Amino acid sequence: MSLAELPDVDDAGEYSLDKIVGELRALRAAAQARRYRGAPPDLPSRAETVAAVEGLVAALFPRHFGPSGLAAREVDSFVTLKLAESLASLRHQIELELRLSGEREGRDRGLSRHAAKIVAELAQNLPNVRLLLDADVRAAYVGDPSAKSIDEIIFCFPGVAAVARHRLAHQLYRLGAPMLARIIAEKAHSDTGIDIHPGAEIDAGFFIDHGTGVVIGETAIIGRNVRLYQAVTLGAKRFATDAEGRLLKDYPRHPILEDDVVIYAGATVLGRVTIGRGASIGGNVWLTHSVPAGAVVTQAKASEDVFLDGAGI
Amino acid sequence: MSLAELPDVDDAGEYSLDKIVGELRALRAAAQARRYRGAPPDLPSRAETVAAVEGLVAALFPRHFGPSGLAAREVDSFVTLKLAESLASLRHQIELELRLSGEREGRDRGLSRHAAKIVAELAQNLPNVRLLLDADVRAAYVGDPSAKSIDEIIFCFPGVAAVARHRLAHQLYRLGAPMLARIIAEKAHSDTGIDIHPGAEIDAGFFIDHGTGVVIGETAIIGRNVRLYQAVTLGAKRFATDAEGRLLKDYPRHPILEDDVVIYAGATVLGRVTIGRGASIGGNVWLTHSVPAGAVVTQAKASEDVFLDGAGI
Amino acid sequence: MSLAELPDVDDAGEYSLDKIVGELRALRAAAQARRYRGAPPDLPSRAETVAAVEGLVAALFPRHFGPSGLAAREVDSFVTLKLAESLASLRHQIELELRLSGEREGRDRGLSRHAAKIVAELAQNLPNVRLLLDADVRAAYVGDPSAKSIDEIIFCFPGVAAVARHRLAHQLYRLGAPMLARIIAEKAHSDTGIDIHPGAEIDAGFFIDHGTGVVIGETAIIGRNVRLYQAVTLGAKRFATDAEGRLLKDYPRHPILEDDVVIYAGATVLGRVTIGRGASIGGNVWLTHSVPAGAVVTQAKASEDVFLDGAGI
Amino acid sequence: MSLAELPDVDDAGEYSLDKIVGELRALRAAAQARRYRGAPPDLPSRAETVAAVEGLVAALFPRHFGPSGLAAREVDSFVTLKLAESLASLRHQIELELRLSGEREGRDRGLSRHAAKIVAELAQNLPNVRLLLDADVRAAYVGDPSAKSIDEIIFCFPGVAAVARHRLAHQLYRLGAPMLARIIAEKAHSDTGIDIHPGAEIDAGFFIDHGTGVVIGETAIIGRNVRLYQAVTLGAKRFATDAEGRLLKDYPRHPILEDDVVIYAGATVLGRVTIGRGASIGGNVWLTHSVPAGAVVTQAKASEDVFLDGAGI
Amino acid sequence: MSLAELPDVDDAGEYSLDKIVGELRALRAAAQARRYRGAPPDLPSRAETVAAVEGLVAALFPRHFGPSGLAAREVDSFVTLKLAESLASLRHQIELELRLSGEREGRDRGLSRHAAKIVAELAQNLPNVRLLLDADVRAAYVGDPSAKSIDEIIFCFPGVAAVARHRLAHQLYRLGAPMLARIIAEKAHSDTGIDIHPGAEIDAGFFIDHGTGVVIGETAIIGRNVRLYQAVTLGAKRFATDAEGRLLKDYPRHPILEDDVVIYAGATVLGRVTIGRGASIGGNVWLTHSVPAGAVVTQAKASEDVFLDGAGI
Amino acid sequence: MSLAELPDVDDAGEYSLDKIVGELRALRAAAQARRYRGAPPDLPSRAETVAAVEGLVAALFPRHFGPSGLAAREVDSFVTLKLAESLASLRHQIELELRLSGEREGRDRGLSRHAAKIVAELAQNLPNVRLLLDADVRAAYVGDPSAKSIDEIIFCFPGVAAVARHRLAHQLYRLGAPMLARIIAEKAHSDTGIDIHPGAEIDAGFFIDHGTGVVIGETAIIGRNVRLYQAVTLGAKRFATDAEGRLLKDYPRHPILEDDVVIYAGATVLGRVTIGRGASIGGNVWLTHSVPAGAVVTQAKASEDVFLDGAGI
Repeated sequence: MSLAELPDVDDAGEYSLDKIVGELRALRAAAQARRYRGAPPDLPSRAETVAAVEGLVAALFPRHFGPSGLAAREVDSFVTLKLAESLASLRHQIELELRLSGEREGRDRGLSRHAAKIVAELAQNLPNVRLLLDADVRAAYVGDPSAKSIDEIIFCFPGVAAVARHRLAHQLYRLGAPMLARIIAEKAHSDTGIDIHPGAEIDAGFFIDHGTGVVIGETAIIGRNVRLYQAVTLGAKRFATDAEGRLLKDYPRHPILEDDVVIYAGATVLGRVTIGRGASIGGNVWLTHSVPAGAVVTQAKASEDVFLDGAGI
Repeated sequence: MSLAELPDVDDAGEYSLDKIVGELRALRAAAQARRYRGAPPDLPSRAETVAAVEGLVAALFPRHFGPSGLAAREVDSFVTLKLAESLASLRHQIELELRLSGEREGRDRGLSRHAAKIVAELAQNLPNVRLLLDADVRAAYVGDPSAKSIDEIIFCFPGVAAVARHRLAHQLYRLGAPMLARIIAEKAHSDTGIDIHPGAEIDAGFFIDHGTGVVIGETAIIGRNVRLYQAVTLGAKRFATDAEGRLLKDYPRHPILEDDVVIYAGATVLGRVTIGRGASIGGNVWLTHSVPAGAVVTQAKASEDVFLDGAGI
Repeated sequence: MSLAELPDVDDAGEYSLDKIVGELRALRAAAQARRYRGAPPDLPSRAETVAAVEGLVAALFPRHFGPSGLAAREVDSFVTLKLAESLASLRHQIELELRLSGEREGRDRGLSRHAAKIVAELAQNLPNVRLLLDADVRAAYVGDPSAKSIDEIIFCFPGVAAVARHRLAHQLYRLGAPMLARIIAEKAHSDTGIDIHPGAEIDAGFFIDHGTGVVIGETAIIGRNVRLYQAVTLGAKRFATDAEGRLLKDYPRHPILEDDVVIYAGATVLGRVTIGRGASIGGNVWLTHSVPAGAVVTQAKASEDVFLDGAGI
Repeated sequence: MSLAELPDVDDAGEYSLDKIVGELRALRAAAQARRYRGAPPDLPSRAETVAAVEGLVAALFPRHFGPSGLAAREVDSFVTLKLAESLASLRHQIELELRLSGEREGRDRGLSRHAAKIVAELAQNLPNVRLLLDADVRAAYVGDPSAKSIDEIIFCFPGVAAVARHRLAHQLYRLGAPMLARIIAEKAHSDTGIDIHPGAEIDAGFFIDHGTGVVIGETAIIGRNVRLYQAVTLGAKRFATDAEGRLLKDYPRHPILEDDVVIYAGATVLGRVTIGRGASIGGNVWLTHSVPAGAVVTQAKASEDVFLDGAGI
Repeated sequence: MSLAELPDVDDAGEYSLDKIVGELRALRAAAQARRYRGAPPDLPSRAETVAAVEGLVAALFPRHFGPSGLAAREVDSFVTLKLAESLASLRHQIELELRLSGEREGRDRGLSRHAAKIVAELAQNLPNVRLLLDADVRAAYVGDPSAKSIDEIIFCFPGVAAVARHRLAHQLYRLGAPMLARIIAEKAHSDTGIDIHPGAEIDAGFFIDHGTGVVIGETAIIGRNVRLYQAVTLGAKRFATDAEGRLLKDYPRHPILEDDVVIYAGATVLGRVTIGRGASIGGNVWLTHSVPAGAVVTQAKASEDVFLDGAGI
Repeated sequence: MSLAELPDVDDAGEYSLDKIVGELRALRAAAQARRYRGAPPDLPSRAETVAAVEGLVAALFPRHFGPSGLAAREVDSFVTLKLAESLASLRHQIELELRLSGEREGRDRGLSRHAAKIVAELAQNLPNVRLLLDADVRAAYVGDPSAKSIDEIIFCFPGVAAVARHRLAHQLYRLGAPMLARIIAEKAHSDTGIDIHPGAEIDAGFFIDHGTGVVIGETAIIGRNVRLYQAVTLGAKRFATDAEGRLLKDYPRHPILEDDVVIYAGATVLGRVTIGRGASIGGNVWLTHSVPAGAVVTQAKASEDVFLDGAGI
C-alpha cells in the first residue's frame, strides 16, 4: 500500500500514544496470563549475562582480551577482579533464573544458596576450561595452513571464540541454568555463525574452521581432536512425539563423534548415529546411519567424478 | 610485495595527509556528480535508525529488552518514553529518506507531514506487530524440542529476533521508506545470519530454527504457521531483463508458501512457484516448480536411501 | 549432573578465588613457555585495530559513516582528523605486531621506522581503495534487482561491507602485518558471515550478494567484475604435507576466477583450478577441475530437471 | 628537594608495587581496627547517592533538568521512571547507612523495612518540597534585579540549586540517614560554594544571592522569606565541651532568623541568637547577640561614613 | 522527628507512585499557568549550552583543551570541526531562547534567521576574544609570582577560566541571548567560585588572582590591565524601586574601574562609583564613593597599624 | 548593542568558517612565537593528570572511592591495578612536562628516566601520604561537633578532599613537576573552594572546616594539628621586585604556623610572619606581624564588644 492510498487516519500525522501503550499493556497481560500463575517474576538480564561471560573469557586469556598494555605484574590483579566481578554478576543472574524456573518464593534463602553452589562449581572448573581451550587452540594451529601463530588463533578464529563460550555455557547447562547457557550460546552464534547447543558434550582439541552455518544439537557427543568445517550439521533425524503428538524433549537424538573424526564443509549427519574413531566424512555428504572407525565417506557424484580423501578448505 | 621490495616512497615513513585528503575529495565529488544533480542531500543515520528500532523492540517486550529490574508499576512509563523517543527519531530519519529519494526541496512542509503520517501508521500498527510476534513465539515453542520456555525463546532465538525486526522493517517498506527498511533488515542479517528482504510478506506463526544462511527474497509470500530451518533459500530463478538487457525490478519472482508448510535445512526453492498448504520439503532439496498441498518432497539419493517425512534439526 | 548430585564441595557455596587465580597463572605460564623464549611480548589490541579500520572506512565514505549531520564545509576536516587518528593508532598496532613476530628487541628504532613505512604505504593507497570500492558499489547496483540506490548499497549491503574491510586488510597482509589483517577480516566475517582471507587478491567490480557462508581462501585470485552469491566456497582441495606429515603453508591452493565469472549460491570450487573468463557456475555445484571461458556448469539433477543459465537470488 | 638531590633509591626508576600495596593494606587494617569491631561493613556509594538526588531534582523540574526535547505528553512517564529509579537507589543506600551506623547484622529484615519506610516518607514529601522550591524561586525573582525570568532562575541560580538539594538532604537527615544527607549537602557545596548543613531548618521563600562562601550551621532555624547574600556565616560562637574536654554535639548553637530577615554580604552571626522579624544586618557586620524585630544593624565605620539600610549586591 | 516517631503512614514502606506523580503534575501546571499564556514552550538545554561553550574554548586554545596528542597538521581540522559543531548547537539553543522570550509562534522563520545572525556575529568575534584572552594571560604572568609559565596559566588559573567564559557569555548577552549568557556565567561560577554577571564590560589584560568569592555586577565597567584578588565585590549599593516598590532593573548601579586599577582581597566597592586610573584599594576595604586616579585606599585599622601600598597575596 | 542595531554583516546569518579558522591560526602562531623557539612541544593532558590523581586517591581509600560493592578479598587487586594504571599515566604526563620545561630534545632517554625516578619516589611515598591523611581525618573528627563518623569525614569533608590532593600535588611540586602539581591543586580548588598552592609545606593533623575561600600561599609552612576555618588567607604582604621592577619569585613570603595553631573564619595573615605554637587568631582578624606561642588575637571591635577565645563555626 503506498502512502497515497493510506486511509486518512489522521491528517496531521498525530496518533494517540496512550491508546497504543494501553493496547500493548493488554497484550502483555494476556501473554503473561498464559504462562505465569501470579505476577510475572523478574527476568535475568541478557546484557549482564553476556558481559559476565566476556569477563570470564578475559580472565582466562588476560593478555588477549584484558585491557591493552596490561603489565606482567598487574595480570593476577586483573584476573582476580574480573573473576570476582563476573562471578558475582552471574550468581545474581542464576538466582533469577532459578526463581523463574518455578521454585517457591518462600524458599528465597535456598535459592540464593543454590545459586552460590552453582557459581562455586563453575569457578572451580575454570582452570579445567582453560586447559581444554589450550588444546583447542593447538588443534587449530596444527590443522589450518592459514594459521600464522597461536596468538592469531586466540585473537581471531571464530571457531575458537564459539567453543570458548560453549565450554562456559555447558557448565551452566549441566549445573541447572539452561536459559543463561542458551543466552551465552546464542550470543556466540550471533558473533560467529556457529550454533552449538549448550547441552552438547565436547572433549578437548576440538576445532571448527571458518564455521559459518555449523549447527550442533543438544545431545551431540564429540570426542577428542575432532575437526569440523563450515556448514556442518550434527542434527536430529526426526522429532519423537508422545501419544498425543506433542514433541518429546530430552532424549538422545543427535550424533556421537568418536575421537579424531573429521567432517568437511556442508556435510549433514542426522540422528543418534555413531561416527567411528578416525572416520572422515566428505564435503556435502548427507548421512543418517552409523559409520565404522576409519571409514572415508564421500559424496558419490559420478558427473563430477571426485574422490575426496582429504578435501578441506 | 614484501616490505623489502617497497619502492622507497619515503624513507622516514612520512606521507602528505593533505594530498590524500585532496584525492579523496576529488573521488567523492566524482561519485556524487554521477548520482545527484546538485549538492548531495543529507543522509539518514544508520546508527540512529538501528537505535530507534531497538527502542521499538524494547517497547514491545519491556520485561525482556527494557532495563533490568524494571518494576511492574514502571512498565507503562518505560513503554511510553521509549515509543515517544523512538518514533520521533524514526520520523526524522524518514523525512531524510523522503528528501533523498527525490522529492522537491520546495515541498519541505509536505515532506515533513508525509513523514509524520508514515510514523503514525507505523505506531498504530505496533499492537498488531506484537500480536504476530506472540504467535511466532508460540510456534517456536511448539516446534522445537530444545526450547525450554517462552522466555528463553524471546531472549535467545535468532529466528524470533530476525522476524521481529522484519515485521517492523516491512511496515516501513510498504509505507514508502525502503532504505530505512533495508538498514533494519541488514542489521538483523548481521546479528542472526538470517537475510529477509523487507518486502517479503509473512503471516503469523512463522518460525525459523537455527537460521544461519536463510535467504528470503523481496516478493516472497509466506502463509500462517510456516517453519523453516537453517540455510533455506526462497530465491528468484532468474532475473528478467528489458529489451536493452537491464534488470527489471519489482515484479513477482520469489516463491509463495501456503499455510503450514515446512522446509528443512539447506533446501532451495527458486522462482514464483507455490508450495501448497501443508507440504514439506526435505533437507537440501533443490526445487524450481510448484508443489501441491500436502506433498512431501525429498532428495532422491539412492546411495543414502533416506526418506524424510519429518527430519528437522 | 544435576545440582542434587553435586559432590558437596562447599556447603556455603564458597570457593578460593586465590587458588583459582593461582591455577590460571600456572596454566598461562605453561602456555607462554611453549611459544616464547623470554617474557611474553605485548600484543596488539584487537579493539583498537578494529576501531582504526572503522575510522578509515568513515574517512573513505564520510557522508555515510561519519557523524550524522556533517555539513559539506566540514567534510575535509573530518576526513583529515579521522585519517590522522586512525593511521596513528594503526602504526602503533603494527609496531606491536612486528615486535611480536620475532624481530630483535635491540632493533626498536628500526621497528618503529618499519611500521611508519607500512602506514605510509597504506595511507597512500587509500584513494585507490576508494576507487575500487566505487566500482564494487556500481557492480552491486547493476547486478541486484532489489537494490534501490547507490546510497542503500553503501549503507546496507554486507557484501560491500566485507569487501571494503578486505581491501584494507589485504594492504596490511601484503605489507607484512598479517595478524592485524586477520583481525580485520574476522571482524568483517563476524559482522557479515562472509569469510575472506586477507591474502586473497580481488580486482575491481567485485560483488557478493547476501553473502552468509561465503568462504574465500588465502591464495584465491579474483578478476574484474566477478559476482558471487551466498554460501559459495573458494577452497583448497586437500592440504599438502611435508615428509614428516606437517602441513605445508603458503603455496597456491585456491581457485583463480577470471574476469566476469558468476558463481551461484552454495557452489563449491576447490583447488588451484581456473574458472575461465565469463564462465558461470550454477547453484550447489561441486567443482574440482578447471573450466574454460564462457562455460556454463550446472548441477546435473535429472530428478528435478532444471537447467539454470542465470539462476540467482 | 630537587631531583638531583634524590637519594638514588632506584637507578632505573623501578619500585616494588607489591611492597606499596602491602603497606597500604597494613594502614587500612590499622585504621579499620580503630573504628570497627569486626570486618568493615559495606559503605554507601557517594556516586549513586548523588545520582539519585539529581534524579529527584529532574523529577521535580522535568522541563529544566529532564532530557532536552521532552514532549508534554511524555513528562509524567519521565517523572514516574525517574522517581522509581532514584527512590530504589536511595533505598539501597539508606539500608547501607543504617547497617553501617551500628544496627545488628541479625536484624537484616528490620533494616530493610526501616529503609523502605524512610524512602516512603521522603517520597510522600516530594510535592511539598516542590511547593517550597516554587516559593524560593519566586523570592529570587522578586529580590534580584538581575533576574530576567523564572526559567533563568531555575536553570542558573546557585542559591536555588543549593537550597533544592538542602530540602532533600534535610528530609534524609531528620529521618535518620545523616551521612547520605551530608554527602548531598557537600556535593551542593562543591557545586555552588554554599555550605548548608542538612540539619538546618529552613522555611519557604528562602533566597541566597551569589552565594559563594555562605555557611549555615547544623542547628540554625530560618523563617519565611529570608534573604542572604554571599559570604554570610550563621555559625556557632564557641563549642561546648563536657567535663573531660570533649566536644558536645547536638545542642542548639546556631542562630534563629525570623521571617523577612535580610543579611548582607560578608556578615557573620554567631551563637544561639535570634534575629527578629524583618531585621536587616548590613554587609560585613559581626554579630554575637540577639537583635529585635525590625532592627537595622550596620558596620559602624567612621572612616567610611556609610549608612546602609538597603545595600545589597 | 526520629523514625520511631513516624506516623505509621505505611507499615510496609509502600507509597503510591501514581499519587505523587499526580501531585507533581498539578504543581507544575499551576507554576506554568502563572508564567505562560499557552502551552509551556521548549527550553534551551543547559547541558548542550555548556558543551558548546567548552567546544569554543577548545577551538580557541586547541593545544590546551583539544584532544591530547593533537598533531600540528591536524589543528586546523580540529578547530574547524569544533567551531562548526559548537556554533550549530548554540544556534539551536539561541533559537529556543528567542522563542521562549516571547516572540510570536507565527514568526518561526524570522526567529531562525535572527538566531543565525547572532551566531554569525559571535563567530566573527572569536578572533577578537582570543586576542583579549592572550592579553589576560600575559597580565597574569606579569602579576603573579607563583606563575611558572604561560601554559600553566592557561591550564590552571581559575581567573583565566572564568574570564574566558565571561568574554563568550558577554557576546551572547549583548546580542540578545541573556539566559544562555547566564547559564555560561553560572557554570564558570560553579567551577571557579568567581561570579561575573555576563552584562559586565571588561577590557583587555584583566586578571583575577585566586578568585573564590569574587562578585562582579551586571553594569560594572572595567578598563585595561585591572587586577582583582579573591573575595572582591563590585556590587550595587542599594536597589532602586519604582513608585509601587518594585525593583527597577537595567540601570547603572555597579562601579566603574578605570585602567590599571588594583583591588586587594576582600575589598567591597558598592554603587555607581568610579575608581580612577591606577588607584589601588587595600584588602578588606569597604568603599561606597568614588576615588581619584592614583589614590591608595587602605583599611584604617589603628590596632594593626598596617599601611598597604602593595599588599597582595 | 541590540540586534536591531547590528550592522548588517550578513543578511542570511552566514559567515566564513575558513576565515575565522585562519585568523585563529595566525593568533596561535603569534602567541607561540612569543614563547617557544621552535615548534610548540606537546603539552601534558589536564584530564589525564586529574584522572590519575583520582586513581591514586581511590587506591589510598579503596572502600570509599573504589567501585561500590568491592569485596574484602578483591581490595588488594583493585589497589594494585589502580596504582599501576595511575602511576603509568602520571609518568607519561611528567615526561611531557619535563620536555616542555626546556630540556633538550636530544636527551629523550634521560627525560624518560628522570620521569621514572619521580614516579618511583612518588609511589614509595604513598603509604606516608595515607598516614598523614589518617591523622588529618582524626583531627577533623575531634575538632568538629557536626562530624558524625570517620566515614562521613572521608566521604564528604571538602577540607579533607583538598588536603588529600595537596599532599599528592606537593610531592610532584618538590620532585620537579610544578605544572602538574598546579593542575591538581586547581582541580581541588574548583571542587572545594580551597586554594592551597602545591608548594606549601603542611604537617600531619591538618583540618580545614567548611573551607570555601581559604587561600594558602606557595611558601607557607604549617605545623602539626593546625586548624583553619573558611575564608582564611595565608598570603604575602607585598611582592618584592628586582631593580627593574620585575617580580621576584621563589623567596619566602608567606606565614609560618607552628603546631596547634587555630585560625578562625575570615582571618587574614600576611607576610613571612610566625604564629607561635598554640596561638589562636580570631575571626576576621587582619594580621601582618608575628605572634608569640599561646597568644589569643581577636578583632578589637568596641561596638560589638566581643571577646572570642574559642569562636569557631
